[in-house]
Amino acid sequence: MGTARVVFDRWDGRYAERMRDVRSSAVRDLFGAASRADVVSFSGGMPDVSRVPTEAVMEAMAQTARDFGTTALQYGSSEGRVELRGIVVEMMAEIGVRVRVDDLVITQGAQQALDLLGKILIDPGDTIITEGPTYLGALQAFSAYQPRVVTIPMDDEGMRIDALEAELVRLGPRGAKFIYTIPNFQNPAGVTLSPERRRRLIELAREYDVPVIEDDPYGRLRFEGGHAKPLRALDEDVIYLGTFSKVFAPGLRLGWVAAPRPILGKLLLAKQAADLCGSAFAQIAAERYFTGTRWRRVVQDLTGVYAGRRDAMLDALGEHFPGEARWTRPEGGFFVWAEMPAFLDLKSLLAEAVEHGVTYVPGDAFFPDGTGRNCMRLAFCYAEPDRIREGIARLAEVLEDRLELYRAFVDAGVVPGGPTAVGSERG
Amino acid sequence: MGTARVVFDRWDGRYAERMRDVRSSAVRDLFGAASRADVVSFSGGMPDVSRVPTEAVMEAMAQTARDFGTTALQYGSSEGRVELRGIVVEMMAEIGVRVRVDDLVITQGAQQALDLLGKILIDPGDTIITEGPTYLGALQAFSAYQPRVVTIPMDDEGMRIDALEAELVRLGPRGAKFIYTIPNFQNPAGVTLSPERRRRLIELAREYDVPVIEDDPYGRLRFEGGHAKPLRALDEDVIYLGTFSKVFAPGLRLGWVAAPRPILGKLLLAKQAADLCGSAFAQIAAERYFTGTRWRRVVQDLTGVYAGRRDAMLDALGEHFPGEARWTRPEGGFFVWAEMPAFLDLKSLLAEAVEHGVTYVPGDAFFPDGTGRNCMRLAFCYAEPDRIREGIARLAEVLEDRLELYRAFVDAGVVPGGPTAVGSERG
Repeated sequence: MGTARVVFDRWDGRYAERMRDVRSSAVRDLFGAASRADVVSFSGGMPDVSRVPTEAVMEAMAQTARDFGTTALQYGSSEGRVELRGIVVEMMAEIGVRVRVDDLVITQGAQQALDLLGKILIDPGDTIITEGPTYLGALQAFSAYQPRVVTIPMDDEGMRIDALEAELVRLGPRGAKFIYTIPNFQNPAGVTLSPERRRRLIELAREYDVPVIEDDPYGRLRFEGGHAKPLRALDEDVIYLGTFSKVFAPGLRLGWVAAPRPILGKLLLAKQAADLCGSAFAQIAAERYFTGTRWRRVVQDLTGVYAGRRDAMLDALGEHFPGEARWTRPEGGFFVWAEMPAFLDLKSLLAEAVEHGVTYVPGDAFFPDGTGRNCMRLAFCYAEPDRIREGIARLAEVLEDRLELYRAFVDAGVVPGGPTAVGSERG
Repeated sequence: MGTARVVFDRWDGRYAERMRDVRSSAVRDLFGAASRADVVSFSGGMPDVSRVPTEAVMEAMAQTARDFGTTALQYGSSEGRVELRGIVVEMMAEIGVRVRVDDLVITQGAQQALDLLGKILIDPGDTIITEGPTYLGALQAFSAYQPRVVTIPMDDEGMRIDALEAELVRLGPRGAKFIYTIPNFQNPAGVTLSPERRRRLIELAREYDVPVIEDDPYGRLRFEGGHAKPLRALDEDVIYLGTFSKVFAPGLRLGWVAAPRPILGKLLLAKQAADLCGSAFAQIAAERYFTGTRWRRVVQDLTGVYAGRRDAMLDALGEHFPGEARWTRPEGGFFVWAEMPAFLDLKSLLAEAVEHGVTYVPGDAFFPDGTGRNCMRLAFCYAEPDRIREGIARLAEVLEDRLELYRAFVDAGVVPGGPTAVGSERG
């Protein structure tokens, strides 16, 4: 009675080799816990879409259905509607980048652009360079194409260019397929690449003949400090990824890629194969929204809201977090990156945190090699300031419990004190 | 001074090997010509969305924006909304297939399911089996994963099971990664797999332990004859692809896949990497449409419309097309497949046809190996009957011109007469 059964998966041995290293998204896996009312979620980078005026959305949708019915319901072009690409041209001009509509392809969020770029550029075994930590969705997208991922550490000015140069020297010219970077309010580290380093990065990329992919979802959400020119403004060969998810809404799944024409041509082939075309309805609705409403006001409002939440989080961290913790101080975007002593395994601590009514994303999700378990990403974008303070207090309790043991070890001289720095100071 | 310049693409040598065989879609490439008012398009398989009542769409969109605002604008789950999957469960029950919501993932049209299945199942060099000709979008999606494609010929009862069996014997058990089939009103051949052959196909797939992918975009658009049970109704291990594009609208980019749980789990990982999630807005809008309107009436109306267009095309073919031509007689769906003497290259003839105000898709687009150039796919779904008659008359003229030379050769005994049959009779 009660014989243990071996469940035989008759599909085993049928999957493609490329899926071996594709991991589930730690953030997506937390969606269940994150949506419980009693849990303060610092896990998902979800914009606060409740700030987008409902009337504006209704009006955009009504116009789309009424005035563009048959176009909106039909298949569209693979590159996306020229009208929406025209809006992107204007948006990019505002951040100092000159592109034409023919330099752009509309994608299913910026995530699709990451997948398609991986598909057209990465052969198994190719080396790619990313920041470490980096956006977990990029690691997920690229990993299906089986690259070797080299990570470059960051400090408060973003990617450490000296470390990048050392890697490029080691790999030699064309030694990597591309450098993937998130220069503004990096996900997950929250740091921003300084103007001087942007220039150096471009110089090195040219010198070593390695293409650059610039991912810029948060660029418009700056709370303080001056706007830094995108890498694409410094070099027309930079592949730039943008998204409407943070300035409007993720629910329409609209992003874009600006790239040199040959790259764009290959990407378009890959996009045809992946989904034929994007949603004409979503594109027209976005066009209506961006031409018919004061969307810049909404972004301004959102930026103020996120700035307040960042302040609440930084204050609460300073008040509640243990003395051993370090964290970054983002000038915009959605995320703070916090680091604990190497001894602490924040992945195994997560279940306990959820029990205490708070979630975060353990740091190893943002590295290709399982490191970073003593780190965590804290998203301040979604919860109200009061909830943020409450959540950080809860999280601090969970950490304190675990740190008591650590302190005893340090006092006994068994482990060294202090975290291993990822370019962060005591806030 | 008119010196010829060699344009150096500095991106050459940087693309992944897998993109080498990915071709552009012949149909997508014809979009430009197909949209000219003076051209009758038989090229794109575009549903007539003008038959979808505008008020119903407006009401669905308004409800979505008004009542589901923040959910519709936010990121959603990767597997798709459970409410929409519930609607799919009902739809599939109506065609004799029992599935639960957990057996389903909502995709960006059925095209995304093809791409994701290729991604999780095909290693470079793996053999896959398709009908020949087959859906060009499937060939496009699969080709990026570098399979060897074996094609099985069809006759008036669909895939020739004797030819399939011969291939399976040759390849041995598990010798192919999967069999991909479009049993109803096949794209592009227009033929339907008979009930007896469906049973045999499933038996053979089990015997040789090869998974089956059943693509069923047109199943509900039957003009005559009895409903044949889907393969998925005969075997729960069949991977079934469905789409809302033909019963509602392609513009929302919504399809689904029903598959065994292990496959679904891998597919979900691949989907997360490809786009995080589908559009919540599109899903909710579809839910509103399918629960709030008499959508079956719309499908009935559409089916009647398409039947009338098929009749117009078959009549016109009989009246105008040259004696050497053969074509299929579809009982539903969108397409007629026509075959000319092997001598005729319909790919090179296309430019001339466009000049004469008519387009089609040359047959080689539907084969992996460049064969089929003496064939063409004629989509009757989009043009009005009068335009269809006019278009076929124009096309017949272009063909007649070219056939004069052919006849002279046949008379002189230089080439043999008659087409090479793909299961079609003189209509």
